[in-house]
Amino acid sequence: MDARREPTKTRQERRDGGRADDGHDLTFVPGPLGPDSLQRIHAYWRAANYLSVGQIYLMANPLLREPLKPEHVKPRLLGHWGTTPGLNFIYAHLNRIIRQRALNMIAVWGPGHGAPGLVANAYLEGTYSEIYPDVARDAEGMERLFRQFSFPGGIPSHASPELPGSIHEGGELGYSLAHAFGAALDNPGLIVACVVGDGEAETGPLAASWHSNKFLNPTTDGAVLPILHLNGYKIANPTLLARMPADELRSLLVGYGYEPTFVEGDEPAAMHQAMAAALDAVLDEIAAIRHSARCGKVRLPRCPMIVLRSPKGWTGPKAVDGKPVEGTWRSHQVPVAATRENPEHRAILEDWMRSYRPEELFAEDGSLVPELAVLAPKGPRRISANPHANAHKSASLRLPDLRDCAVPVPGPGRSRAEATRTLGGYLREVLSLNKDARNFRIMGPDETVSNRLDAVFDVTGRAWQEAMLPGDDHLLRDGRVMEVLSEHLCEGWLEGYVLTGRHGLFATYEAFAHVVDSMVNQHAKWLKSSRDLPWRRPVPSLNILLSSHVWRQDHNGFSHQDPGFIDFVANKRGDTARIYLPPDANTLLCVTDHCLRTYDRINVVVAGKQPAFQWLTLDEAVTHCAAGVGIWEWASNEGETEPDLVMACAGDVPTQETLAAVDWLRRHVPELRIRVVNVVDLMTLPAPETHPHGLDDPTFDSLFTRDRPVVFAYHGYPWLIHRLTYKRTNHGNFHVHGFIEEGTTTTPFDMCVLNRLDRFHLAQAALRAAPRLGARGEHAEEALRDALAAHRAYVRQTGDDLPEVRDWTWPERHAPGDHDRRIEGDIMQCGPTDTAKPGQAGTVDGWAVVN
Amino acid sequence: MDARREPTKTRQERRDGGRADDGHDLTFVPGPLGPDSLQRIHAYWRAANYLSVGQIYLMANPLLREPLKPEHVKPRLLGHWGTTPGLNFIYAHLNRIIRQRALNMIAVWGPGHGAPGLVANAYLEGTYSEIYPDVARDAEGMERLFRQFSFPGGIPSHASPELPGSIHEGGELGYSLAHAFGAALDNPGLIVACVVGDGEAETGPLAASWHSNKFLNPTTDGAVLPILHLNGYKIANPTLLARMPADELRSLLVGYGYEPTFVEGDEPAAMHQAMAAALDAVLDEIAAIRHSARCGKVRLPRCPMIVLRSPKGWTGPKAVDGKPVEGTWRSHQVPVAATRENPEHRAILEDWMRSYRPEELFAEDGSLVPELAVLAPKGPRRISANPHANAHKSASLRLPDLRDCAVPVPGPGRSRAEATRTLGGYLREVLSLNKDARNFRIMGPDETVSNRLDAVFDVTGRAWQEAMLPGDDHLLRDGRVMEVLSEHLCEGWLEGYVLTGRHGLFATYEAFAHVVDSMVNQHAKWLKSSRDLPWRRPVPSLNILLSSHVWRQDHNGFSHQDPGFIDFVANKRGDTARIYLPPDANTLLCVTDHCLRTYDRINVVVAGKQPAFQWLTLDEAVTHCAAGVGIWEWASNEGETEPDLVMACAGDVPTQETLAAVDWLRRHVPELRIRVVNVVDLMTLPAPETHPHGLDDPTFDSLFTRDRPVVFAYHGYPWLIHRLTYKRTNHGNFHVHGFIEEGTTTTPFDMCVLNRLDRFHLAQAALRAAPRLGARGEHAEEALRDALAAHRAYVRQTGDDLPEVRDWTWPERHAPGDHDRRIEGDIMQCGPTDTAKPGQAGTVDGWAVVN
Repeated sequence: MDARREPTKTRQERRDGGRADDGHDLTFVPGPLGPDSLQRIHAYWRAANYLSVGQIYLMANPLLREPLKPEHVKPRLLGHWGTTPGLNFIYAHLNRIIRQRALNMIAVWGPGHGAPGLVANAYLEGTYSEIYPDVARDAEGMERLFRQFSFPGGIPSHASPELPGSIHEGGELGYSLAHAFGAALDNPGLIVACVVGDGEAETGPLAASWHSNKFLNPTTDGAVLPILHLNGYKIANPTLLARMPADELRSLLVGYGYEPTFVEGDEPAAMHQAMAAALDAVLDEIAAIRHSARCGKVRLPRCPMIVLRSPKGWTGPKAVDGKPVEGTWRSHQVPVAATRENPEHRAILEDWMRSYRPEELFAEDGSLVPELAVLAPKGPRRISANPHANAHKSASLRLPDLRDCAVPVPGPGRSRAEATRTLGGYLREVLSLNKDARNFRIMGPDETVSNRLDAVFDVTGRAWQEAMLPGDDHLLRDGRVMEVLSEHLCEGWLEGYVLTGRHGLFATYEAFAHVVDSMVNQHAKWLKSSRDLPWRRPVPSLNILLSSHVWRQDHNGFSHQDPGFIDFVANKRGDTARIYLPPDANTLLCVTDHCLRTYDRINVVVAGKQPAFQWLTLDEAVTHCAAGVGIWEWASNEGETEPDLVMACAGDVPTQETLAAVDWLRRHVPELRIRVVNVVDLMTLPAPETHPHGLDDPTFDSLFTRDRPVVFAYHGYPWLIHRLTYKRTNHGNFHVHGFIEEGTTTTPFDMCVLNRLDRFHLAQAALRAAPRLGARGEHAEEALRDALAAHRAYVRQTGDDLPEVRDWTWPERHAPGDHDRRIEGDIMQCGPTDTAKPGQAGTVDGWAVVN
Repeated sequence: MDARREPTKTRQERRDGGRADDGHDLTFVPGPLGPDSLQRIHAYWRAANYLSVGQIYLMANPLLREPLKPEHVKPRLLGHWGTTPGLNFIYAHLNRIIRQRALNMIAVWGPGHGAPGLVANAYLEGTYSEIYPDVARDAEGMERLFRQFSFPGGIPSHASPELPGSIHEGGELGYSLAHAFGAALDNPGLIVACVVGDGEAETGPLAASWHSNKFLNPTTDGAVLPILHLNGYKIANPTLLARMPADELRSLLVGYGYEPTFVEGDEPAAMHQAMAAALDAVLDEIAAIRHSARCGKVRLPRCPMIVLRSPKGWTGPKAVDGKPVEGTWRSHQVPVAATRENPEHRAILEDWMRSYRPEELFAEDGSLVPELAVLAPKGPRRISANPHANAHKSASLRLPDLRDCAVPVPGPGRSRAEATRTLGGYLREVLSLNKDARNFRIMGPDETVSNRLDAVFDVTGRAWQEAMLPGDDHLLRDGRVMEVLSEHLCEGWLEGYVLTGRHGLFATYEAFAHVVDSMVNQHAKWLKSSRDLPWRRPVPSLNILLSSHVWRQDHNGFSHQDPGFIDFVANKRGDTARIYLPPDANTLLCVTDHCLRTYDRINVVVAGKQPAFQWLTLDEAVTHCAAGVGIWEWASNEGETEPDLVMACAGDVPTQETLAAVDWLRRHVPELRIRVVNVVDLMTLPAPETHPHGLDDPTFDSLFTRDRPVVFAYHGYPWLIHRLTYKRTNHGNFHVHGFIEEGTTTTPFDMCVLNRLDRFHLAQAALRAAPRLGARGEHAEEALRDALAAHRAYVRQTGDDLPEVRDWTWPERHAPGDHDRRIEGDIMQCGPTDTAKPGQAGTVDGWAVVN
């Protein structure tokens, strides 16, 4: 299907002229399109190209009904022409195949910088004017369409949430294919066309994304149709995939598991026929695969795809100032620049735009002529109006009763459980309850079991379409857990899944969440912009569970020790970012249950997987999580008046160490009146004008006091707490202990010691911050120093923590002066099936719908 | 070269026994290895495997000279066995080929979790004991070797800087191949063997890294030998590359441009022969490619590589508790766990270790027997001792005289220049001066010209080994600029390059620097750990230039607007992270010049590329950058006493807006005494105990006062300034304006307005913070409100900024009350070749060597 002209001649011709001569009399070449169809699809393409150029250049005279004058041209020319005509070409042909086969199709446009073309198409389809009535299908509307592009208060130069039919921000490159596969999951009737630019194809995430086909079930999922668009150049360089030998490119795509059909050339007529033929063949093949699979046939063939090789800036100016432009990197952005100042440049622009013959395309009132308007699909079949791209499936999840999932907590520190294992039981129920709705998935880099969520495998498996062998663990064609050793893929799939209205959880190691910083960043920006668009439906939140966290990476060492993802998310806007640090299993349940009910958020939950003491019953957890922060009265001894000191904590390990420090202090300096405050929702700390969860000042002061020292044990980098609280009255008295990049290979407790987040350092900090305690305080400080020295010696010798440290728990009761009494209660070990019995726990209502 | 036994039988045999029966009488099979060589290489492998198991399990009885007792076993068993025997197998065979051909070879171990094997080999080679004499080559040393592994104060369970011969942290996966290619650049005599695990191969960065072969010049660069190690499973899942059909895998690798040789099986004798034959063939081919290329022949064939398919946990326990272990995901970490408590498990461990027959491998004193010791290469040919892996080439760069590169600055605001274009001239000189040393490269995602560094193309080109076509721009086989649309590759190449002692710069768009957050994070951790190792030489700093920054992303819109990379880097340790915000071209030169002289740092420099006013002459810039922060007296009007107000700024756009605000205030409320402070080195702000660049408190107070309001205009998220200064006396009076996620499509000035970082909002903030000015202050505030309203109306109408805003510059002189006087001096436009004449600028010494 090579539709190239004889190259030497073409090249020569291009150099000769400064203007396009784009198919005025398109000579018929045979192919699937009849003569009339060929002329019409070509005219539709011209219309899209015309509107694209108009957006980049014009602010008046949109239909060129008068000669082009300087004042018709925008003062600042911005946008990317290079990729646009290729996108318009693909769009026109997708329209044809949608109409012909009544397809349910959305499209993901990787070369999203080509927004002029995508906006033009949405306008040609009428969707744009339906959503933005100001931008009507008439001359005045067309002027608005042109003017708003890359203009203050208008739309950006790449595909953005403002573009109807899009689920994919076209700013940062690399994620189109992962988004496309995420959108296709559990949508068996859907086809997701995904245009991959040859620039984007060089990125790591995209290079890995091709393998997503090994996770897509042809029976229960939709199809993805990749269209690799080779236009040869990036900003200045040739692209790797366009320049590598053709046999290597085919081999690469076959190796990725695809069967490529090549459409190559620059002659419009031949290219239209080749593209139409390719789409016919590819859609036949998709239908055949679906049919076989759904008849139960084992047929996992190579997935069909198209490689479109077309000139960059196709149909644009052939040359400007004597330098070739069409087909070169010079057409990447604005191919002819000085159109306001330079009459010659302006003439090139005018000739270029007139070469599309707008007078044939648009009627007197400026609307698309009827014989072209019928080429667009109708209603929700339009790519720009497909309801999948606007989260039309965003039904809420059915969620289990937390009482069926909680762990029994006979008293603070009376039982141990692994928080994430408890969560696994909850997620198993979520999967069961939504089995038929097929709208919940779990993604993770091969860590579902490692993160102890394995109860989910009671009811589902790991999605896998490759061969299965004896000994494989819970592989399942239709598995709802998706594991691949690529955080990029996990995150990208989940984004595509939630952007099309379904729900999910991405569970990953805390330290390596940074791998997807930039993806989460772009998703946050998408949510921020969408929220300003009334027509955009809310999308289920992106829920990220960080486990295997910084404080329990003993043997893995420094590379696995990093809590910085929280800081990254905390930089995002208050209307988007949520960060939860549940201190134990039941609070983790409450927080997750809450997150799964929310929309338009990025929820980050940090929770350990190791056996740990449990502090709160489900009832208490519900109350505590609803408030987001609270005084733990059972741990405090402040009495009637204000305490001498607040011991605050956020995170599971910091909470344990704080309670151990408080226990120690209450034994050794019982006259010290301590308040224990636990923070589960980090965003209660900033002021309410900064974050909607922020406590008002009186409430904050009632917890943290206005003038007492606050020793704050925090899971992450300590300065985040300072940042969040710096406007608070009492901020000057905050002493925050957190991770200070003193990681190494060591034991859990020693890791805390190295970072001064352990009970002894926290108690020391309390003694130093608290009012003078005289000799008693000095004795206590000495005892703490001794304890630290003893720990140090023991751990280096034995490789383990001191038993009295490791096995410490909160005593059943504290009495003043019970200095040396150690209470050895029975510690209950909770397995994954131990749950609080119904009736033991109280209501779980009251927090679910709060955002 | 398939060395698999008939699979059914093997599988059956495995299930039968609980212990390994690993080649006690290794039956000879023919191949390149003679009978003696075969037995010896096998014995060497057994020794490495023995030492690997010992590290995971034992803390005493290292040579098993007495029966294994519970107390010999570590209390906490940590580490990854699964990948280790395969790595040991590869290591033994690399040793053979190094010796045979006197190769200069380093190795990058992607499956770095297999550190027990890599440490074992460094120990067998003697390097480990040379560097860590405590870990001697005797029984006592072996006990230390075992004990230290994953033990408090010891070494982590993955390859880390402590491992001699390594340039690659094995914690986070994905970067091995990029590191390997980076190391090979400009080392024409070097071969970099790079083992890629099949887990790691699923990551995005690794998937893209295969294409690095398109940038490696066989004439002037070294060779990379990828060894894809398929052991079938990750933690729990099969791996994609091991499970996909064999023909697809071959096709994929061929598509990536490689010619794979497959070594597959589980019978040691046959596998040894197959691996030896494969290495012989591959090294022949590498030699042939080098020879052809260096004879000037155009021969860019497929790069040879090896695919090694071997069982996970090879030679480990066949089964434990009735479940198969060898060859399954169950051998990923510790294959038999309860060895301290469970005698049956302990017996499996003992049988396993004894199956390697340590008594044949180690002499009476515990040292490796001489007939095996000779199998290791000697001296610097040892992989663990190759000087390339310890930055032995780390000669300083020759750097140009800044006077030859600076722009003339006749007075503050009297000239315009593009800062990065000026830098391009400097970098051109750096490239020229180090042409012969071949130790400087520039990496970037196709943005060298976009970021206006194109002067470098006067003296070099873009590295490119694929076909070249007419119209290509500055492609060059031996180009020193490396451009690919993958920040991961750019960063990974540069890391490999600097870790082997060479210098470079990674120039990228600010918003998308987040793509490499996690890579930079891991590099920072590497630097932190290396610095504690006296034997590790310093490595040249990782220099990152962020251009096309948040404040000038007008048309690109919100997706391109993100200054968060700074925050990310600011979380790293003070001994590693440096952040510079030069306000103009000459300061950018000084800062970059400084960065290129440093070692062991991550230097982040943020600089705009747009034409902007210049403030400082080179002399002034040198002084200013040396201090890192300073009062701009020429802009201040504080007089003899303390000012009423400090206007501080950091970043090019914030500096311009601050000066415009000060100008406005001095015209409208001349009685207000203002001090202007500019911050170029962000790390002068925190306290010196937090960061070595931190100013002491008296100096800080002398700049920012102890009690005057400070209006601080900052390039990034404002809270970072609060965080850095929160311990300072005057912190309560800081009013920071920065990016608050109010991005959109707009003009440069309007972008500032939306985020309240513009001159009018800054002046407003000054008026509100400053002492009461009475009616005059109220009038001024009203004028500011009017100015903002006028701007708003104008920009929405015209798409451009008000001329008086856009064209404002600092007046030649300020006189009290010169309210309405606008000074229209001649503004000089500096092109890339305009530099300050020698003699105009003063000395540039005095700051160069400061870290």
